[in-house]
Amino acid sequence: MAVKLNLSKKNFSEWWDKIVFYADLIEERFPLKGAYVWKPYGFAALKLMLKIIEKLLDETGHKETYFPIFVPASLFAKEKEFLKGFGGEVLRVTKAGHHVLDEELIVRPTSETIMYPMFALWIRSWRDLPIKIYQIVPVFRWETKMTKAMFRVREIVRFKEAHTVHATAEEARAQTEEGLQIYSKFFTELKIPFLIIKTPIWETFPGAEYNYDFITVMPDGKVLELGSVINLGQKFAKVFDIKFKDVDGKEKYVWQTCYGISERSLGAALALHGDDKGLIFASKIAPVQVIIVPILKGGNSENEKILAKVKELKENLSKNFRVECDLSDASPGEKFYHWEAKGVPIRIEVGEKELKSKEYLVALRDSGRKEKVAEKDLSSKISTFLEEIDSNLYKNAEKFVKEAIHSFTNTKNAKEELKKKKGIVKLPWCGETDCGKQMEIEVDAGALGYNEKEHATGKCAKCGKPAKWYLMFGKTY
Amino acid sequence: MAVKLNLSKKNFSEWWDKIVFYADLIEERFPLKGAYVWKPYGFAALKLMLKIIEKLLDETGHKETYFPIFVPASLFAKEKEFLKGFGGEVLRVTKAGHHVLDEELIVRPTSETIMYPMFALWIRSWRDLPIKIYQIVPVFRWETKMTKAMFRVREIVRFKEAHTVHATAEEARAQTEEGLQIYSKFFTELKIPFLIIKTPIWETFPGAEYNYDFITVMPDGKVLELGSVINLGQKFAKVFDIKFKDVDGKEKYVWQTCYGISERSLGAALALHGDDKGLIFASKIAPVQVIIVPILKGGNSENEKILAKVKELKENLSKNFRVECDLSDASPGEKFYHWEAKGVPIRIEVGEKELKSKEYLVALRDSGRKEKVAEKDLSSKISTFLEEIDSNLYKNAEKFVKEAIHSFTNTKNAKEELKKKKGIVKLPWCGETDCGKQMEIEVDAGALGYNEKEHATGKCAKCGKPAKWYLMFGKTY
Repeated sequence: MAVKLNLSKKNFSEWWDKIVFYADLIEERFPLKGAYVWKPYGFAALKLMLKIIEKLLDETGHKETYFPIFVPASLFAKEKEFLKGFGGEVLRVTKAGHHVLDEELIVRPTSETIMYPMFALWIRSWRDLPIKIYQIVPVFRWETKMTKAMFRVREIVRFKEAHTVHATAEEARAQTEEGLQIYSKFFTELKIPFLIIKTPIWETFPGAEYNYDFITVMPDGKVLELGSVINLGQKFAKVFDIKFKDVDGKEKYVWQTCYGISERSLGAALALHGDDKGLIFASKIAPVQVIIVPILKGGNSENEKILAKVKELKENLSKNFRVECDLSDASPGEKFYHWEAKGVPIRIEVGEKELKSKEYLVALRDSGRKEKVAEKDLSSKISTFLEEIDSNLYKNAEKFVKEAIHSFTNTKNAKEELKKKKGIVKLPWCGETDCGKQMEIEVDAGALGYNEKEHATGKCAKCGKPAKWYLMFGKTY
Repeated sequence: MAVKLNLSKKNFSEWWDKIVFYADLIEERFPLKGAYVWKPYGFAALKLMLKIIEKLLDETGHKETYFPIFVPASLFAKEKEFLKGFGGEVLRVTKAGHHVLDEELIVRPTSETIMYPMFALWIRSWRDLPIKIYQIVPVFRWETKMTKAMFRVREIVRFKEAHTVHATAEEARAQTEEGLQIYSKFFTELKIPFLIIKTPIWETFPGAEYNYDFITVMPDGKVLELGSVINLGQKFAKVFDIKFKDVDGKEKYVWQTCYGISERSLGAALALHGDDKGLIFASKIAPVQVIIVPILKGGNSENEKILAKVKELKENLSKNFRVECDLSDASPGEKFYHWEAKGVPIRIEVGEKELKSKEYLVALRDSGRKEKVAEKDLSSKISTFLEEIDSNLYKNAEKFVKEAIHSFTNTKNAKEELKKKKGIVKLPWCGETDCGKQMEIEVDAGALGYNEKEHATGKCAKCGKPAKWYLMFGKTY
């Protein structure tokens, strides 16, 4: 506990590697690149995050399912375009023991080709529609680039993928909207500012009609894709022959959507909210919301009473909050340092003075502000403090993301800006693929997409024709 | 819905295959032998089951974690005896895309060799002990025997494995006891009668000092292993060099235990409790505890009022129970048949008569008993009925399992009995390995184990020396 971290968020990459390890979120020393062990503290945060998304999905009529992790290679290869999208990154099982399998198995990178042949069996008539399901499962992509805990991994341990099937194109479009709303609520609960962008056609998810991405900006200026919502149209329906008999008696292909997020969302919240002291958890995902620290003095006759009070407070507050007390033999200063680094939003100090006055010193992790609170007011005050912290975390992150977005009218300036500070640069765009692709080359960065709802003024930065949208560029994880 | 199943539990295998499919628990048509798709109704039951075990583990200080699914072959091979135990059944990833991996990856059959090298990094002093963790994850065994949904599968989708580390042999022994207690409570909540047996030394889990199995008997007379609790001693500690500095300043190897269960537990509950009409869910794992069926008559002016009442009852009862109402256009008879097959414990019928009298016909799935219940008493009565059903399910299953156990004094009679009716046969045994193995040959069945607490009278069925225990035999899944 006496370790000093010397954290500086300015060097984000080092900050991240140090803090996820120190704070017991994950273990990075697992002997396989890109695979991480989730420790109890980190896994508790992940579970809290999943609870939020599960609730949002359950409330909107999605049902949880589970599909197998391995799929015969022939089945996976049925959608050739889709396969190509993952081809280099899919893991293949070829042996059981030392026996070579008759047919190789693909380890799912995502479950379209696993689920959709089953949909073809399940769906007969319009009465079977819509289907709205999800699963929370590990998926695998054999990343060869730099791996990074939560952000770029080979085993995504909790991929949440929703898949829906509909009778009409209109319903699928409406479902895409519902997906966008669900994720918007989700990221809002996590206090993550985000942009919803439409992916340019040449970067669209394999097998999709069109897709939206939720993106945000990380402390190092890199752009992070948080999740996507995809309208699959009828592409998979035609490959896997998913048809239904409609009310008019005619056989029709179904319309599909899918949307997914992962533990990246947790990573994004932690990366955006932390500071040079370490993590700061937003209240909904904090495994410990309140830490109670006894302030003991050697040989003090009041020590036992202080400890009894600490336990009493813990018991009382546990009815409304996730509370721990630190009864280790470290010094109060060491404890403060430790729990600040672990990102616990609220600290309560209980010493001799507090015991007498029945007023406790409450410290807020984000601002460092301290306030004396009477015992009877503790519970309601903590609620207020948590809201205050959440609100500050969001405001600061929102400010940061806004300031990382810059508008330009020509690609040269945009390129320079990106080189200097990263973040996101926006350029007016006519909407044509050729222009977009040319801009990617000139800006020297991938096109992220555009906000459909923000119509551009001025001329396309490439062809000079009237611009429709602002195309965004940035370096991604 | 109009399908007639013609179920007969006497032909258990066919009964099982038909009912898991009809009741929408799982999809058996996934194109990979031994892999199954969990549908929403089945997955909901599985989640309810997991909630019970999670609560029992959390209450006893176990913390949830997650360890990677793939492990480099060299690491897995470190415990050679252990590897041999799974050797033929482990899946091996050898390729990413079309690129051959430098080192093959093992797909975890269970996580000892994945977790324990990490323990070696985490544990320094006695202060770091005990460690009590668990994870709920898919594990894989490439079964080549007959596969069967939930009972014998290649992908166990929700393996719950707990692993603990201790400073002394005594603590590890005590932990084994705690494991036995946790699982005993768990199976009691599921209303599964069980035997706890100690595995004979020649059948012990690879790498274990000794282990206990929870077993029960299935309707076809086969014995089902429900879970095991294992004292690992210091075997893995020595292989993976897991040491700690004790209070006395000396370096010592740790002592370990592990215990696991899977979705087999759900399978066992369903197999034991069902009847010729289909499933019967015990209350704790019933995805739907109460189904409300409106009894409508063509052109009846009361129909709308009946439907309104059904929705009102559903809303009120949902505060305390998992409730659905069936508003489809099937006939009441079809609905009764359908929800009985799906195993919903309580059915409420609401027709014109009921609407007037405010007394509703409540039917109990297990006995078929019907009772009129006044609206104001519904909630409390349903609680009582669910307890009654649970109690009956357990009593009947207990009777069945008891009657499937037969004691003999010689192997010849035991063999005949097993051939005739399966179940479990017991023979007095001196405790020596030679005698046990000989008895296996003569009985023509594997030794399951013995109840340590039931001391035998009489002579060993093999050598004639005084018997210590009763060794049990049976055909297992």
